[in-house]
Amino acid sequence: MEQYLINSLDIAGTLAFAISGALAAARKDFDLFGISFTAFITALGGGTVRDLCIGYTPVSWMRDMNYLYIIILAVVVTFLFSKYLLNLHRTLFLFDAIGIGVFTIIGMKKALALDIHIVMAIMMGITSAVMGGVFRDTFLNEVPLILREEIYATACLLGALIYIGLEYLGVNPVLCLTVTIIFIITIRILSMRYHISLPKITLHHDL
Amino acid sequence: MEQYLINSLDIAGTLAFAISGALAAARKDFDLFGISFTAFITALGGGTVRDLCIGYTPVSWMRDMNYLYIIILAVVVTFLFSKYLLNLHRTLFLFDAIGIGVFTIIGMKKALALDIHIVMAIMMGITSAVMGGVFRDTFLNEVPLILREEIYATACLLGALIYIGLEYLGVNPVLCLTVTIIFIITIRILSMRYHISLPKITLHHDL
Amino acid sequence: MEQYLINSLDIAGTLAFAISGALAAARKDFDLFGISFTAFITALGGGTVRDLCIGYTPVSWMRDMNYLYIIILAVVVTFLFSKYLLNLHRTLFLFDAIGIGVFTIIGMKKALALDIHIVMAIMMGITSAVMGGVFRDTFLNEVPLILREEIYATACLLGALIYIGLEYLGVNPVLCLTVTIIFIITIRILSMRYHISLPKITLHHDL
Repeated sequence: MEQYLINSLDIAGTLAFAISGALAAARKDFDLFGISFTAFITALGGGTVRDLCIGYTPVSWMRDMNYLYIIILAVVVTFLFSKYLLNLHRTLFLFDAIGIGVFTIIGMKKALALDIHIVMAIMMGITSAVMGGVFRDTFLNEVPLILREEIYATACLLGALIYIGLEYLGVNPVLCLTVTIIFIITIRILSMRYHISLPKITLHHDL
Repeated sequence: MEQYLINSLDIAGTLAFAISGALAAARKDFDLFGISFTAFITALGGGTVRDLCIGYTPVSWMRDMNYLYIIILAVVVTFLFSKYLLNLHRTLFLFDAIGIGVFTIIGMKKALALDIHIVMAIMMGITSAVMGGVFRDTFLNEVPLILREEIYATACLLGALIYIGLEYLGVNPVLCLTVTIIFIITIRILSMRYHISLPKITLHHDL
Repeated sequence: MEQYLINSLDIAGTLAFAISGALAAARKDFDLFGISFTAFITALGGGTVRDLCIGYTPVSWMRDMNYLYIIILAVVVTFLFSKYLLNLHRTLFLFDAIGIGVFTIIGMKKALALDIHIVMAIMMGITSAVMGGVFRDTFLNEVPLILREEIYATACLLGALIYIGLEYLGVNPVLCLTVTIIFIITIRILSMRYHISLPKITLHHDL
């Protein structure tokens, strides 16, 4: 039941990230290959960095053809429905929030399964959720949005801590996952709506 | 004979990619180190990502000093003949086409030798051929050309499929390689001359 | 004694690189996460690439919590003292020079300990010292400074060669390290003061 839920959410998250990458590439006037490449990097780049850092090779997406099918599906969906998807940014935002939540927990669990220290496992969870978007923006020649705006990675961190806390208390795994993801989505929506950001350093000097 | 042909073409491809990287860096007013760095990344970046993803470490260029010598040769050649090389873009284009063809097949074969699934092996072949150029453009702070223009990666994909098909039919390996590379070069030249591109998504919305 | 000196210098170097990353991110108006991310990438990115290339996984910073503490310290210091740090660029420049010196030697020694060929070990040393800054500038959407300006990587290369030469001659390890680092700092300061750069290729053609 827990594994089934994780797999379903993993598919939803991968699809959402891939569509977000494909749309971003389409806006940059990329061709079909560029769109597929960007969808791939956005959806699987974070997990690839995580796998490389913990030494889990061949990396996850090379062991399971389904990831490739999801990318292809995302590109097809983007080609067919790009007009509508742009009006669906609320839906995409929700998918994206699900994606970062699931990727954080899955990434953390994969690291823990390889006996990685729990603090490092949390960092691997955040890496899984965050690096795909960083690569997408970097290859598109933009400053990664996540580094400037809103409580994105912080939601991942808090979600990971809550998950560990609940698991430690012996709460049912499915409930852990559900609560954590709803928590991350809620933080994301609230920070978006009320423009809550992390503090910045104000530099008055001319640099 | 097959191995000899592959090695010769590998050298030609590495040299061509390295010169293309060195010239691009020289245009950006990089110093000698920046030029060497860019030549290195362009020529060996794709193969490094491939090796990391399949878990082949130390990566290939650390096991064979010849790659380093080729990079040094490329930088020297670029320094001495940059004036002439710029007028040689037809020659460079041909070298580059040979390079992507050979890197695709070599990358695919290296993955297959490690029992990687054939679809993933093809992806590793494309990665070998493509990522070097993506890194070059990203570090030069430009949107990777390959993501926007012409049938570049598609030529790799078709070449890889034809190679596998011919090998499956029992065709002589040297002939497989020769036919595949001539095919990729032909596609590249035709797509260049007639400005054939992959389809793009036309977005009419103001984004 | 040697190990104690290396550890101390490693901490100083990591802290200096992390502060340099945090300040660069603050100038780009990043939030707390963006600043932490950039500090992390700048300080630990080079060592991570080195570890991945030589196949040393989990990577070094995942095996030692101290690196994480240093990053956190650097971010806190940057938040509290950013106003003063900007006036401390001479101090930072010195820390940075120490950092690249130490990272070059540490990177080289880690590779040698894994039986990597000495030429490749030197390249791994340079990679450790250089890639963090390249990632910092790339994610900040700028052309990496190191690729354009001054004798940065060259100082690393010469330092590594001198270290190997002195070690080969049987010189005391602590003396090797001290001499090498003072040498690198001196080269850096001289090249900064007198604007000594590596040669560039002058291209007169309209590209």
